[in-house]
Amino acid sequence: MDSRNIRLAVIPGDGIGAEVVTEGLKVLEAVVGTKVETTTYDLGAKRYHETGETLPDPVLDELRGYDAILLGAVGDPSVPPGVLERDLLLKLRFQFDHYVNLRPVKLFPGVETPLGGARPEDIDMIVVREGTEGLYAGTGGVMRRGTSHEIATQESLNTAHGVERVVRYAFEKALGRPRRKLTLVHKTNVLTYAGDLWARVFDRVGLEYPDVETDYCHVDAASMFFVSQPERFDVIVTDNLFGDIITDIGAAIAGGIGLAASGNINPDRTAPSMFEPVHGSAPDIAGQGKADPTATILSVAMLLDHLGLAQEAARVEQAVADDLVERLTGWAGRTTHEIGDDITARVTG
Amino acid sequence: MDSRNIRLAVIPGDGIGAEVVTEGLKVLEAVVGTKVETTTYDLGAKRYHETGETLPDPVLDELRGYDAILLGAVGDPSVPPGVLERDLLLKLRFQFDHYVNLRPVKLFPGVETPLGGARPEDIDMIVVREGTEGLYAGTGGVMRRGTSHEIATQESLNTAHGVERVVRYAFEKALGRPRRKLTLVHKTNVLTYAGDLWARVFDRVGLEYPDVETDYCHVDAASMFFVSQPERFDVIVTDNLFGDIITDIGAAIAGGIGLAASGNINPDRTAPSMFEPVHGSAPDIAGQGKADPTATILSVAMLLDHLGLAQEAARVEQAVADDLVERLTGWAGRTTHEIGDDITARVTG
Ligand SMILES: CC(C)[C@H](C(=O)O)[C@@H](O)C(=O)O
Ligand SMILES: CC(C)[C@H](C(=O)O)[C@@H](O)C(=O)O
Repeated sequence: MDSRNIRLAVIPGDGIGAEVVTEGLKVLEAVVGTKVETTTYDLGAKRYHETGETLPDPVLDELRGYDAILLGAVGDPSVPPGVLERDLLLKLRFQFDHYVNLRPVKLFPGVETPLGGARPEDIDMIVVREGTEGLYAGTGGVMRRGTSHEIATQESLNTAHGVERVVRYAFEKALGRPRRKLTLVHKTNVLTYAGDLWARVFDRVGLEYPDVETDYCHVDAASMFFVSQPERFDVIVTDNLFGDIITDIGAAIAGGIGLAASGNINPDRTAPSMFEPVHGSAPDIAGQGKADPTATILSVAMLLDHLGLAQEAARVEQAVADDLVERLTGWAGRTTHEIGDDITARVTG
Repeated sequence: MDSRNIRLAVIPGDGIGAEVVTEGLKVLEAVVGTKVETTTYDLGAKRYHETGETLPDPVLDELRGYDAILLGAVGDPSVPPGVLERDLLLKLRFQFDHYVNLRPVKLFPGVETPLGGARPEDIDMIVVREGTEGLYAGTGGVMRRGTSHEIATQESLNTAHGVERVVRYAFEKALGRPRRKLTLVHKTNVLTYAGDLWARVFDRVGLEYPDVETDYCHVDAASMFFVSQPERFDVIVTDNLFGDIITDIGAAIAGGIGLAASGNINPDRTAPSMFEPVHGSAPDIAGQGKADPTATILSVAMLLDHLGLAQEAARVEQAVADDLVERLTGWAGRTTHEIGDDITARVTG
């Protein structure tokens, strides 16, 4: 990676996507200098309306050639629900085999949390969310649509292959952290088929990691503990849908969706990984400079880390941490640009 | 109901179930006098180990004859995961067509919430959780079990019949509350088949309730809002699994699982409804007098309300509210019995 430029595909997407991505790139360029080459793709609601395209195959093929993808946000009320999500965002995750959706839940010092008593050391976990299976497979169907006898089904698909690789990744992650604790979150008492597979794989792989303390928690209890006892968790591994839900609770307790970063990772590197803030396109505040670019900037740090630039990643994360501490002293009311500029200055300074 | 006794089936179940049910019955008897006739059923882990039975058909038939059921909690680590849940608790919900799982999320004055800034008026909602469909149907399967090619599926079944009746119930509930707001919680952008059915039914039934303000929220966003903006919600209607998850977040924000009540309701009264605390059997603290019976006592209030004894229900709820305010002044450390006695005294006094 050091010998040549980083080739980055950028998908600003919809709503506030473009604004936050601009700041993410500003920080990225500041930290790696001219070593980054970006190409922007106009995927999202606008292109869908103009051409009917969401993610055409030639574009998908082209994207495959990049080192990584930075995505802002997709989704717009003018597009039928599910279209951009399924045919653009989820298509990228599935086609590029992003089987690890990595979502840190970390309360930075200086950040306000809605949890009265929580300190930064209480909220410091990583959720390893499966990214290519489960209810996100999109299988299911409908019969007698629109009648009083309609039935609609939705299927969760889980494979030993898919579960084992993400569970293994999570054990490795846990091994690399001081607490070395891994919690499986599922609903084995109700989703008995899928839960049994997850639990068996978790137990079996766990035998190879005697130094990692393991634990199990039903998703309902885990959701409660995120609020009442977040310090219970270190690394969590869970399925696609449960991961979606608990990481949003995680975002809430760690200071809000404006700070939550994520990486859609293909650990085998058979396709580029994709980094994106957890937040959506927030069309209601788009174009007003109100969006917090911090989540995107933290996603850039994850991107750098994934590309082997650990020092640069750490510099970005430190710059964000310092910026967040400053907010304590009433440094509020900055625009998207101003926050980006301030973090950039810290990275270069 | 007034002319004859209340015939109540009691299933204490496992762990702390018996302790909390004892207090619930104490309050019930105090408020309705001798008008309640109870029969206790020894269903749960003990019976399962002794006879292999969870809920035999003759018992199910007998239970059908009662006015209502009061359940403590089921589940024990000695029983394989899912057995008591599926073959006892969920079997009752399904066989007795408890299509409404009613779960108030209400912060009583005096109760501590982990949410720093929240006041009682911010947390006052009712979740109407569907109780007989979705991923709880138990359908799914496994192939090539134990091999590296294993696949496990789990199916969410949703019918127009099942969705419409619970949505309609939720609209009626919303109509009876001052804010008259109903939010559908689902994940329509990913669970497109099931979500489409839910959204269409919600919109169609909504036309009949022009006085109810409607809203939609993805389950991940809703989970976040429970923590960051609980005041957004008045009445929520959602599917079985999403309801399971968000009501546990609800319990956390409203002061903990020790206070969360629920009713498994058959609004058509073709079978008895069943009332139970949201908490589980907590085997770790069973038999020690540490369990808070308040959730069960509030479930008794819901039971009274369901049986048409609205005044008695209100008295129980008021007694609990008064007891909770007292806790503010350091009235902690009471045993299960003592809390039950104190609330009983308030009901009779
Ligand atoms: C937009 C949606 C499809 C997506 C998901 O459900 O994965 C989002 O909520 C997320 O968490 O990245
Ligand atoms: C015990 C379990 C099957 C049950 C459920 O998932 O419904 C419980 O969590 C609940 O919420 O009542």
